Amino acid sequence: MQTEKKILITECPDQKGLVAKITAICFKQNLNIIKNSEFVDNLNGRFFMRTELEGDFKNGHLLTELDQALPSGSHSRLVSKGRKKMAVLVTKEAHCLGELLIKSHYGSLDADIVTVIGNHDTLKDLVKKFSIPFHVVDHQGVSREEHERELLQVLSRYEFDYVVLAKYMRILTADFVSSFPSRIINIHHSFLPAFIGAKPYHQAYERGVKIIGATAHFVNNDLDDGPIITQAVIPVDHSYKPEDMAKAGREVEESVLTGALQKVIDEKVIVHGKRTVVFD
Amino acid sequence: MQTEKKILITECPDQKGLVAKITAICFKQNLNIIKNSEFVDNLNGRFFMRTELEGDFKNGHLLTELDQALPSGSHSRLVSKGRKKMAVLVTKEAHCLGELLIKSHYGSLDADIVTVIGNHDTLKDLVKKFSIPFHVVDHQGVSREEHERELLQVLSRYEFDYVVLAKYMRILTADFVSSFPSRIINIHHSFLPAFIGAKPYHQAYERGVKIIGATAHFVNNDLDDGPIITQAVIPVDHSYKPEDMAKAGREVEESVLTGALQKVIDEKVIVHGKRTVVFD
Amino acid sequence: MQTEKKILITECPDQKGLVAKITAICFKQNLNIIKNSEFVDNLNGRFFMRTELEGDFKNGHLLTELDQALPSGSHSRLVSKGRKKMAVLVTKEAHCLGELLIKSHYGSLDADIVTVIGNHDTLKDLVKKFSIPFHVVDHQGVSREEHERELLQVLSRYEFDYVVLAKYMRILTADFVSSFPSRIINIHHSFLPAFIGAKPYHQAYERGVKIIGATAHFVNNDLDDGPIITQAVIPVDHSYKPEDMAKAGREVEESVLTGALQKVIDEKVIVHGKRTVVFD
Amino acid sequence: MQTEKKILITECPDQKGLVAKITAICFKQNLNIIKNSEFVDNLNGRFFMRTELEGDFKNGHLLTELDQALPSGSHSRLVSKGRKKMAVLVTKEAHCLGELLIKSHYGSLDADIVTVIGNHDTLKDLVKKFSIPFHVVDHQGVSREEHERELLQVLSRYEFDYVVLAKYMRILTADFVSSFPSRIINIHHSFLPAFIGAKPYHQAYERGVKIIGATAHFVNNDLDDGPIITQAVIPVDHSYKPEDMAKAGREVEESVLTGALQKVIDEKVIVHGKRTVVFD
Repeated sequence: MQTEKKILITECPDQKGLVAKITAICFKQNLNIIKNSEFVDNLNGRFFMRTELEGDFKNGHLLTELDQALPSGSHSRLVSKGRKKMAVLVTKEAHCLGELLIKSHYGSLDADIVTVIGNHDTLKDLVKKFSIPFHVVDHQGVSREEHERELLQVLSRYEFDYVVLAKYMRILTADFVSSFPSRIINIHHSFLPAFIGAKPYHQAYERGVKIIGATAHFVNNDLDDGPIITQAVIPVDHSYKPEDMAKAGREVEESVLTGALQKVIDEKVIVHGKRTVVFD
Repeated sequence: MQTEKKILITECPDQKGLVAKITAICFKQNLNIIKNSEFVDNLNGRFFMRTELEGDFKNGHLLTELDQALPSGSHSRLVSKGRKKMAVLVTKEAHCLGELLIKSHYGSLDADIVTVIGNHDTLKDLVKKFSIPFHVVDHQGVSREEHERELLQVLSRYEFDYVVLAKYMRILTADFVSSFPSRIINIHHSFLPAFIGAKPYHQAYERGVKIIGATAHFVNNDLDDGPIITQAVIPVDHSYKPEDMAKAGREVEESVLTGALQKVIDEKVIVHGKRTVVFD
Repeated sequence: MQTEKKILITECPDQKGLVAKITAICFKQNLNIIKNSEFVDNLNGRFFMRTELEGDFKNGHLLTELDQALPSGSHSRLVSKGRKKMAVLVTKEAHCLGELLIKSHYGSLDADIVTVIGNHDTLKDLVKKFSIPFHVVDHQGVSREEHERELLQVLSRYEFDYVVLAKYMRILTADFVSSFPSRIINIHHSFLPAFIGAKPYHQAYERGVKIIGATAHFVNNDLDDGPIITQAVIPVDHSYKPEDMAKAGREVEESVLTGALQKVIDEKVIVHGKRTVVFD
Repeated sequence: MQTEKKILITECPDQKGLVAKITAICFKQNLNIIKNSEFVDNLNGRFFMRTELEGDFKNGHLLTELDQALPSGSHSRLVSKGRKKMAVLVTKEAHCLGELLIKSHYGSLDADIVTVIGNHDTLKDLVKKFSIPFHVVDHQGVSREEHERELLQVLSRYEFDYVVLAKYMRILTADFVSSFPSRIINIHHSFLPAFIGAKPYHQAYERGVKIIGATAHFVNNDLDDGPIITQAVIPVDHSYKPEDMAKAGREVEESVLTGALQKVIDEKVIVHGKRTVVFD
């Protein structure tokens, strides 16, 4: 018998006895529960469970049995534990990409970056240091549709679990986004929903804010409005000019993005309408 | 010779040699600088200085000499160090008022609460425990102007440095506000400028935010839009219902408000247009 | 049928299928799981579970069935959800007591303070404001054993769930402590294990630390060495004199203590040797 | 006239009129004060000032005039603003080095890393990516004195402002340390003075701590006991095994170290006995 570690994610309408049902099926399949987390969204009557399992999954009966036992409207999936593959989209700013590259390299982010695609070539040299393929997909002189078509073509050459927008400064169409449902992660230059729009740090400066934030979120239709994964803030004061606020913003952006990605990699994030469940 | 401690606040258009000029005048007046903080707002060409002084201020020449030495457009004021007097306006929520009362009582907030005025009598018993006069100024059945006139009349019976809106749930008119320029401090139920408006915690819940914040600010014309003094946030997660977010909000509100008031009491906050300088 | 909310705490040696077993028993008893949290301490082979249940507990079979089903060495207990009763011991410092009184009063701490006992009468007036009985049990001129005997006698007149040492500056004997196993909670004047001993803020000042902390913990044998519930820190800088560090310390102490108590009240803390499991 | 930006650091016994004296001399030299920060250590009667100046420094009279005007026991120095040069010592752990390399590369740390020296060759490949010379100075089979002699010899080939111990796991002798007074910066694997010694994360686990910290400090005689520059903590809980605590520790170490280095680079840190003054 070969022992593996997998993560079971279950989501279904809430009813009495769900934990008992699901864990009994795991037990019957001779799978050991390493860690279990549930959440019942009482306001919406929905049940979420994340279960780390250890054992022999080869007969493949777990999901079948769950499907039969759980109420209609349930979704279960079984995913492997471990490193995930990422395609990264960038423009010119290096800070988020730099953190992804270095943390992936020394192992504090369990992600392999399979490719980096920029609409400029500014970050090519940085990516090359890590022997990762870099592609320029220039947006100039082509229509948005053509540009995204080329982007999709380059992406199609790689296998990846997630697309990370590491300060990718272009808006993606609903068409593009729908190719990767809940698989595109963006880092937003503000503490959503504050200061949506251009020059957020000038807005923040003018308003005299005392905190600068960042938000990592999934991209669904609207660029800055998808389900939030993680948010954090950093204190600033009156002595910060807009460019100092921007620097503070970069600092909080890079730490929020890497933190959110690790949560996603660990299969701890479940998207649920406009909201997320993020287990510990 | 009698020694006192005072705080000199100076504000003027920036030019070369201001620190030298001001400190030389202090030295000439035989005043010792205990602590000094300056800030030059280079973007707007404005100079701010806060100086803790010790010595004999009785001849009163300090401000006169400063007025002569500093460029036109300068403002200097000399204030005593120590406890300040507060009038507090409330509605029904006890958490901010409760913290002000208890911290004022045991001395961690250097403020004496001279009166509490509510548009309801819900908090009367709490205030009475601390032997502080409580007044109900009911807003029902009277016009906004009448209500504020009565409010002003009650306030006029007391001597105070600041008016604190400790979850006072009514909007004050520009007229009322202009009676206490930069002397009214409000605690706002959100991390400005996010979620302005009604039911902020329901909005926050719907949006699936991961942080709840609070903002203490001066009230000038627009209730929620005055110069920010302090902001802070508290983490929340998917398991928070709107009422849990509201509870987290209350917690951060009370700590932000008391922190901001202590800064104001210590004369560390200078209002400057829509922004504040907040010295350490 | 009468519906109640209770919390089931289960602790036992780890083995396969525990979650399935326990939740199946709850289901069989027709109890609905509102919220469930488990933790497996793999290093020590121990399983912990906290389950919020709703239903009719009157037949009382739940614990009996669990005892039969679970491996030997298991402990299960069923506790009511809601406010808890506290006896508070103090000396002269008001900040922690003040926060307990006010937060208990306005409802942000789900605790009723049934009595406050001081070895000085300094805090009597503060306690009286809240119509709570205050007792002086003077330690002067009596032996430690006599003093604690009197303390126990006064305590015996009240019903309470926990004893809170809210800056009680005397060391309790092992005998006294053993009367309330895992029911005495202390707030420690430092970030344990740092600066154990007298004048911690002078030590902190001399060492030039940049953070001041506080630790809330259960008291078992050794006053400052029991299982930690919560810890937090507050930043300080070079301008803090020992008394400023002490003030910062008081601020973090009061927030750590009230936070820890709420966790304990919510039955989210399980003591496990020298460590605690603290569920979300 | 050529305009430069420099930073004046002044330290001397406290007396009345120091700010006036120093700023008057700056004014007389036609230097503009961009930013000024002072601190009076009243307990020790010592005055510290950091002044950002702009103007023409070529005649070099500033320091001479200050020396004549200030009381005996004063030290003044004038340093250039901007990037600093660092030599980095490492062993096998990549996280601190990785952050220094990437942040230096993309410009969020104003430091050039001129060389990295390891007592193992583990990190050679990482350093080579950034085209920075890496040297192995093996400590095996040689005496501590010989090893440090070789270290000094390699260092002597480079020009640098600071030596950074980025998880350099060897103790340096007082002799070595005295070659670089207040120029060696270490990152310590704990929140000093807690858990000094081996296996700090096992100690922290056994103690059941709820916070993990890190301390950046200058190295003077005793490896872990020099003046503290910055400290920070990260929350942990019961589910953290020692290796998880170590991972959290690495995260806080890398952010504390880079934060402290930026403060040092900006000439905002003044060492003062066992303590530091760290200006904003």
